[in-house]
Amino acid sequence: MPTRKELCIPQRTIMTPGPTEAEPRVLRAMGAPIIGQFDPAFTGIMNETMQMLRELFQTENRWAYPIDGTSRAGIEAVLASVIEPGDSVLVPIYGRFGYLLTEIAERYGADVHTIECEWGTVFRPDEIISEMKKISPKIVAMVHGETSTGRIHPLKEIGEACRAQDALFIVDAVATIGGCAVKTDEWKIDAVIGGTQKCLSVPSGMAPITYNDRTAAVIAARKKVERGIATAADGKMLSGHRPITSNYFDLSQLEDYWSERRLNHHTEATAMLYALREGVRLVLEEGLEERFRRHRRHEKALMAGLAAMGLDLFGDPEAKLPVVTCVKIPPEADGESIRRMLLSQFGIEIASSFGPLQGKIWRIGTMGYSCRKENVLFVLAGLEAVLIRHGVAVKAGEALQAALNIYDLPAETGVLS
Amino acid sequence: MPTRKELCIPQRTIMTPGPTEAEPRVLRAMGAPIIGQFDPAFTGIMNETMQMLRELFQTENRWAYPIDGTSRAGIEAVLASVIEPGDSVLVPIYGRFGYLLTEIAERYGADVHTIECEWGTVFRPDEIISEMKKISPKIVAMVHGETSTGRIHPLKEIGEACRAQDALFIVDAVATIGGCAVKTDEWKIDAVIGGTQKCLSVPSGMAPITYNDRTAAVIAARKKVERGIATAADGKMLSGHRPITSNYFDLSQLEDYWSERRLNHHTEATAMLYALREGVRLVLEEGLEERFRRHRRHEKALMAGLAAMGLDLFGDPEAKLPVVTCVKIPPEADGESIRRMLLSQFGIEIASSFGPLQGKIWRIGTMGYSCRKENVLFVLAGLEAVLIRHGVAVKAGEALQAALNIYDLPAETGVLS
Repeated sequence: MPTRKELCIPQRTIMTPGPTEAEPRVLRAMGAPIIGQFDPAFTGIMNETMQMLRELFQTENRWAYPIDGTSRAGIEAVLASVIEPGDSVLVPIYGRFGYLLTEIAERYGADVHTIECEWGTVFRPDEIISEMKKISPKIVAMVHGETSTGRIHPLKEIGEACRAQDALFIVDAVATIGGCAVKTDEWKIDAVIGGTQKCLSVPSGMAPITYNDRTAAVIAARKKVERGIATAADGKMLSGHRPITSNYFDLSQLEDYWSERRLNHHTEATAMLYALREGVRLVLEEGLEERFRRHRRHEKALMAGLAAMGLDLFGDPEAKLPVVTCVKIPPEADGESIRRMLLSQFGIEIASSFGPLQGKIWRIGTMGYSCRKENVLFVLAGLEAVLIRHGVAVKAGEALQAALNIYDLPAETGVLS
Repeated sequence: MPTRKELCIPQRTIMTPGPTEAEPRVLRAMGAPIIGQFDPAFTGIMNETMQMLRELFQTENRWAYPIDGTSRAGIEAVLASVIEPGDSVLVPIYGRFGYLLTEIAERYGADVHTIECEWGTVFRPDEIISEMKKISPKIVAMVHGETSTGRIHPLKEIGEACRAQDALFIVDAVATIGGCAVKTDEWKIDAVIGGTQKCLSVPSGMAPITYNDRTAAVIAARKKVERGIATAADGKMLSGHRPITSNYFDLSQLEDYWSERRLNHHTEATAMLYALREGVRLVLEEGLEERFRRHRRHEKALMAGLAAMGLDLFGDPEAKLPVVTCVKIPPEADGESIRRMLLSQFGIEIASSFGPLQGKIWRIGTMGYSCRKENVLFVLAGLEAVLIRHGVAVKAGEALQAALNIYDLPAETGVLS
């Protein structure tokens, strides 16, 4: 049997839309010893985490807890628990992750309707609302921040229209949570899925979700406690409903695990819960508004630097996602060769894109702990040098000056708000 | 907003059937910095982990990789990917986790047949084989080590019968992997699910699985690459088959992520993969045979101590799971009060049980990093003191002497084999 060496991880500067650099204090928290899942010290941490997630999601919802899986596990848990075969689901698509919503919804038997707009733009609210009126969906599911195109979608008017039509509004806020405002209650969102590995700067592997009583009622109608732990009081499912297909993603069972009943379901992912608890605590300690302002400040510095270098940004600036900046790859440049050199020479990672944008844009993230002055300055310096090395004409020496000029501005001015 | 303190975790001695104490070197590995999922340094770790998992599962299978979720996520991923509605699945049940297999299989539309034996015993192989002959199942699914009853099931004859009848043999080895031999190829098991949080001493949150070409063929027939990343070459599904309902647990897509194609699916749980890689590396470094021998040595010491104290063990000794020891709660004792005092006074956790055994037995684990001499001695000392404190008649002072006597024996003698 070959001898294998201890894990050895290179240090990188990660400027992608995720996974981002983890907060060092979060990583340290993962080294805490394991305790049992029904140990009062552990259930106390579960309860604290739920309360902090409510603050993060800006909600009074009773239910706010993580799914033990990556972000798409959170999306699937919500959709699988809510969608019954034949349910009508409207998905307005403006990038790759809209397709993921349709993909999951279809697998669970939904009658999926989609509307699409050009990648790099978003919908006008009335475009979505008029489609809703046509098809009266049970559910409207959409992405808040589309990392594939670097756009953010306004949600308030859609949320109000959903409430008026009695549709459930489900939002994928994986990319925005912890970096941009996600006002669950104010925007009348019925269920939200967040991600750990982007603006929260917690490693991938957990997906915090929240949902309100409207969503909980749909789930409760399908409740079925598993054999071996069910009691007589668990009774039968409401007639006319089908049980949730997935056991792992069955939110009705997860509610019994995340509340006083503490009914055994899975074994909670101990170290990941430590990480999430610390990650969210640090977000709240920084303050949501202050944190969002920080993200915009670094975004502005990055954008100023890219522009000064002579690069063009992709997409509708009115709908720009503050935590992802999409840059058009100069026509004469080999985007992948440049990304490779950035990684091999500088240890800097930026992202390519998907589908129609593959080979056309780079995506640079400014998320969570990765969203720091030295990272922004280093990615600008590295990109400029690598572009020059590839024979691409750029305005040399301008990018860092432009970024530093932004950083010289007082943080409170209108430019950075 | 209330100020919240840094995470503070009490130190415990965990002697349950999981989650167990994590290997300190595994916890340390989780603190390594994040790197991107398509960074060659990371895909290298993915490949190394696959190779080490093959050695752990004692298999030549091409497919051996983790599911990003807790152990039951691994079970669900395998069952969801293999079971099509109407498929006949035989589940021989000898404890709680057999019910979990039926629960998941039923939700995915299987026609589930069960046979049951008394908790604390296991089946004779011919009992299972004669049932197989009667119903010709497509799948036989069973648990290797039942932590709820502390029994281990012989698998070789069942595996041979499955191969002869062309049934798929799927085994839940969550409790045994890394603590007892799991001979995937020799026992003709078609798919195996392991757990991290038991004998591997890695935190909960990942489930390593392996499966052979027979299983892969069933999965391949249902393959459907998701929109947004599919190419023309992905083609259509084989006729007569239904796509896998779950997107997250779709092993056909996970294969494209865990192989050269590196097709984006989820964002791999970075820190958990570091932990799994280190956990499995340390198991292989210790050596499988040596590790199993260590587990039996501490089991013998624990059993000798419990017997010397005057406590009775539960269940058929011929089928005892070496890593879990079930103790009958003395009739005059309040089992839960004793567990609570063990935790509050000694910081020691042992487990209760489920269903028909609730209140009747305690379950003491000797798994992975928790399976150490000082832990065995401390749990014996603590249990004796707490029993005395509860007015239960025990032979005082005998338990530790009996355990030390076992530890005085040379490790190679027949007693410990």
